[in-house]
Amino acid sequence: MDTTFNTLKLIHLGIDAQRENVVFMRKDCHICKSEGFEALNRVLVTVNGNSKIATLYIITDGILQAGEAGLSESAWKDLNAKKGDEISFSHVQPVTSMSSIRAKMYGRQLNNENLQNIIKDIVKGEYSNIEIAAFITACAGDNLNIEEIIGLTKAMVVSGQRLSWNKKIVVDKHCVGGLPGNRTTPIVVAIVAAYGLTIPKTSSRAITSPAGTADSLETMTTIDLSIKQIQKIVEQENGCFVWGGSIKLSPADDILIRVERALDVDGEGQMIASVLSKKIAAGSTHVVIDIPIGKTAKVRTEEDAEKLKYYFNVVGKAMGIKVNVLFTDGSQPIGRGIGPTLEAMDVLSVLRNEENAPQDLKNKSLLIAASIIDLVDEKNGLQSAQEILSSGKAYEKFLAICKAQGGFREPEFAVFKEDVTAEKSGVVIEIDNRKLAKIAKLAGAPHDSKAGLLLKTPLNTKVEKGDILYTIYSETNGELKYSVDYMKSEKDIILIQ
Amino acid sequence: MDTTFNTLKLIHLGIDAQRENVVFMRKDCHICKSEGFEALNRVLVTVNGNSKIATLYIITDGILQAGEAGLSESAWKDLNAKKGDEISFSHVQPVTSMSSIRAKMYGRQLNNENLQNIIKDIVKGEYSNIEIAAFITACAGDNLNIEEIIGLTKAMVVSGQRLSWNKKIVVDKHCVGGLPGNRTTPIVVAIVAAYGLTIPKTSSRAITSPAGTADSLETMTTIDLSIKQIQKIVEQENGCFVWGGSIKLSPADDILIRVERALDVDGEGQMIASVLSKKIAAGSTHVVIDIPIGKTAKVRTEEDAEKLKYYFNVVGKAMGIKVNVLFTDGSQPIGRGIGPTLEAMDVLSVLRNEENAPQDLKNKSLLIAASIIDLVDEKNGLQSAQEILSSGKAYEKFLAICKAQGGFREPEFAVFKEDVTAEKSGVVIEIDNRKLAKIAKLAGAPHDSKAGLLLKTPLNTKVEKGDILYTIYSETNGELKYSVDYMKSEKDIILIQ
Repeated sequence: MDTTFNTLKLIHLGIDAQRENVVFMRKDCHICKSEGFEALNRVLVTVNGNSKIATLYIITDGILQAGEAGLSESAWKDLNAKKGDEISFSHVQPVTSMSSIRAKMYGRQLNNENLQNIIKDIVKGEYSNIEIAAFITACAGDNLNIEEIIGLTKAMVVSGQRLSWNKKIVVDKHCVGGLPGNRTTPIVVAIVAAYGLTIPKTSSRAITSPAGTADSLETMTTIDLSIKQIQKIVEQENGCFVWGGSIKLSPADDILIRVERALDVDGEGQMIASVLSKKIAAGSTHVVIDIPIGKTAKVRTEEDAEKLKYYFNVVGKAMGIKVNVLFTDGSQPIGRGIGPTLEAMDVLSVLRNEENAPQDLKNKSLLIAASIIDLVDEKNGLQSAQEILSSGKAYEKFLAICKAQGGFREPEFAVFKEDVTAEKSGVVIEIDNRKLAKIAKLAGAPHDSKAGLLLKTPLNTKVEKGDILYTIYSETNGELKYSVDYMKSEKDIILIQ
Repeated sequence: MDTTFNTLKLIHLGIDAQRENVVFMRKDCHICKSEGFEALNRVLVTVNGNSKIATLYIITDGILQAGEAGLSESAWKDLNAKKGDEISFSHVQPVTSMSSIRAKMYGRQLNNENLQNIIKDIVKGEYSNIEIAAFITACAGDNLNIEEIIGLTKAMVVSGQRLSWNKKIVVDKHCVGGLPGNRTTPIVVAIVAAYGLTIPKTSSRAITSPAGTADSLETMTTIDLSIKQIQKIVEQENGCFVWGGSIKLSPADDILIRVERALDVDGEGQMIASVLSKKIAAGSTHVVIDIPIGKTAKVRTEEDAEKLKYYFNVVGKAMGIKVNVLFTDGSQPIGRGIGPTLEAMDVLSVLRNEENAPQDLKNKSLLIAASIIDLVDEKNGLQSAQEILSSGKAYEKFLAICKAQGGFREPEFAVFKEDVTAEKSGVVIEIDNRKLAKIAKLAGAPHDSKAGLLLKTPLNTKVEKGDILYTIYSETNGELKYSVDYMKSEKDIILIQ
């Protein structure tokens, strides 16, 4: 053995553990044995003088040779590791701020300092996923009171970057629990910016859906911009459409959300803190929150929505911003396209006032834009919004923002496509959105931006046998085949009666 | 690609995730993309018609080729997988019983059925570590009331195997939070069995310490026995010393304990349920619980100990067993040896009434044995225990049980050793137990059973410069060197003044 009693040599394994720092060691490794390390232990690993806390996984087979260790991708990057580097190990005490979480389990209230330390440690990557799960559980349900939610919001604001503007009023919008195809953002930003309000909008990419707002915008313009660029564009055009990942407004949230999703636990307090902290960090003073209510939406009843509304208002007030909460229809998807490019086409068709533009997308965008204008000016916002859209000013503003961001690109259909036709005549009485989303993803969305599908027959459409129900688009023949194979293996994707 | 749209080929990775079922897939895998899988998702994997829920890890480097997937060791075994097998994937709904845990987060009380479903699903391996962390957190602190602790105890009893005896009285003992070298069990069992009570004792192996009771016993006899063998031995000799891992009395506990340790969270209710469920599953009617109290022990204050005592008594009563809780001194280790064989030697020296036997180990063993006798017979237990030990009857019984278990082996010292001597004269005023334990583990304990160290100079011993403080034993020269290197790199392991 050419290793000493406390070091191993690193090899590159390339295992992604979703931002969790993981170290891989052999079961028969003398360090594991002497330190009494076991799988899931948190250990302090040091490479080239850089140290990180990591979760231990034990390897029993041939991936690692004697004397070798490996790291997950996030740890590899954070430690600036190279193949062959020496790695050393020591025990760690549990993260100090975990003691506040234990106190919370015993029903004690967390103060601002406790919450700041927890969020700081989470952002530093010092929490394992198991510890994050404990934090989420301890704060879930009604476990955070209003002061704690305010404290958590503050902690999240200070943990990331902040934008500042030379404006008294900066507006923003947020939708709680998205619906498929719900691409109101580009339209709302265009209307509101054309009206004259400052709206520096950031959006996210898809994680499990066929397209996020950022993915859709990216088919038309550049969205990965620096803070400096954003500031110049907003100064000039009042608004922007930016990928939120390019600036870190609430880095804790990105870490928490994955574990929340894995647990299927939705901490109300945490959600409020996460949404408002991002808006405050972005410099917003007036925010419209859209809560779609529906059986398959995130918020299912008006009662739940009312409670969220109350929290958003109280916490917003405490943080010094004005919040308006809208309840909207969450019972079915909005627009026709599913996939980045096809959703962008819906957006453009609304902005261009095309006759066959999806009316649901148009109406919802108008409603949100109007509500933002009303929140600031207490005027007839809907009338202004309608006028700006129908006059073409919104489309002009949209193009101007795209130009400032590097230019507008007209989205194009993919080369490979397959029409799916009705097997009988009748009326469309049910659409399985989950299956449609899967077809779009098998076709390549959101990675291949042109992939997806275009629905020709929304609910209640009358169809004849042989009519096209929807068209699947794909950038490769192989992916189109995957998608069609799956489509053929499923029944009742679109139910006709 | 020779895979279809929903299968991959398995390769063997050999990654141990501590009983968690993990599936490894490539980041660019079409199944990940189309299903919208992301790291940490729970997915249903099917191999050869067997299905299991597993946690997804994403691989970005060359461990997996296109079209391949891997499994953690527990999933590989449970699914009876072979290299080249086809593996298919589907989404899973979160485990149904997780909804009870979410309800608990909202402050609702769990009933017996909820708790039984949770424990059943945990034992089936359907919970991810993150979900287990949520369960532990939701039940931590004071979050379980007495009815819930009783419900959890019942759930744990029915989740595993049970032993039954043709006896009205069956006794047992348990120590809450062990101390180094605290090997009272073999002595207590020998005394109590010689007295005539039935004591079918199971013990655990070391997890992070240099020796568990089972490791120590294994240096003298066979401890991996079937239920049938145990029943025959206990029938014949009144007692046994068995490794608890050979029979599954509380399988949920083995899973929970690892996550609890990783979180450093000690759910009182869960601990009570775990201890008592194992005793009840083992068929015990009378149980003595030893709670060492001390600064570095698990229970730190008498107040905490009183609360535990109350719970043990109330839950024990509800479950129909008699419990006696002892408070003992937890301020320093017990005995001289550290490591399986060296601790076994301490035990034998007490049983053989040797003059230099560690008095602390002898006295504590007598105290516990007496307390068991008192709990059953309400007589002067201490006098009986002392008489049985000093007369040699306890030693005789110890040998008889070992014989019934397959024979007694005299433990022997390891070949390689190194004496560590005092650098100055004075009195031993402090001993760093953590560092001593690490020296023993680097020397090879508990894996190499003869490895460890023998302390010659307990607290308050007067030493001259050059006197032997302790001797390190090892089965290989290489490990002895690791251990000595570490010892030389540390200061004040034994402080002399």
